[in-house]
Amino acid sequence: MKYILPALFVALACAPPKTPKAEDEAKIREVLTTQQAAWNEGNLDLFMEGYWKSDSLQFIGSSIRYGWQQTLDNYKKNYSTRELMGRLQFEIWQIVPHAPDTYLLTGKYTLFRESDQPSGPFTLIFKKINNKWVIVYDHTS
Amino acid sequence: MKYILPALFVALACAPPKTPKAEDEAKIREVLTTQQAAWNEGNLDLFMEGYWKSDSLQFIGSSIRYGWQQTLDNYKKNYSTRELMGRLQFEIWQIVPHAPDTYLLTGKYTLFRESDQPSGPFTLIFKKINNKWVIVYDHTS
Repeated sequence: MKYILPALFVALACAPPKTPKAEDEAKIREVLTTQQAAWNEGNLDLFMEGYWKSDSLQFIGSSIRYGWQQTLDNYKKNYSTRELMGRLQFEIWQIVPHAPDTYLLTGKYTLFRESDQPSGPFTLIFKKINNKWVIVYDHTS
Repeated sequence: MKYILPALFVALACAPPKTPKAEDEAKIREVLTTQQAAWNEGNLDLFMEGYWKSDSLQFIGSSIRYGWQQTLDNYKKNYSTRELMGRLQFEIWQIVPHAPDTYLLTGKYTLFRESDQPSGPFTLIFKKINNKWVIVYDHTS
């Protein structure tokens, strides 16, 4: 009994709740709203504030790419004009608590441009680091 | 102090380790090895054993699709011949502990077929449910 109670206590305290805390959800949605607005103002530096400023930030594409600075550099290279940037729109499909201070967010981006309209789903992992919610893992199709 | 110590205890007990437990990693790798072998024998029913047998199983594509049975039906419809199935190969890039009994796995699939060679990265969430490791979330690009 001496060992069961602490174990039970930890199990209950660790189990992530099934729905997001309202405050967490609001803050996480705010990150994406800010990113969307920043992109649509052509402000890639502000857009990147939504990501973990770390060399360990992960992007999943044809390989795992790492790092905040490299990501910013790539964005600046690939979206060098407002025409290429187009108008970004996010749809949030779900926000699921995964671990303490960790959420899994699934959604879809669409880029409205003169010549085309790329879009695809994304899986993001948000973590609260130094009291700020940031994306630490981004898999966009 | 009375409240700090239990809180510290929970925080330490909850924090997922940074590397996977060897036993968990072995079991998770076994799931993918079995899936790969099953696919390459044309056995979609065995392939599907790697997934959570639940209506809540999630697939991320152009929308969120749910459900084990629907997934199996789709696979049987879309890969109705051995030629369409081709030869499946998985590459595992990383397996990261995320929460108690929860891992995030990132990797890549390639389908070697006569006419083409589709491939893409995937993000999988593995959970231990009823003492069995299963995929509960699959985002494949």
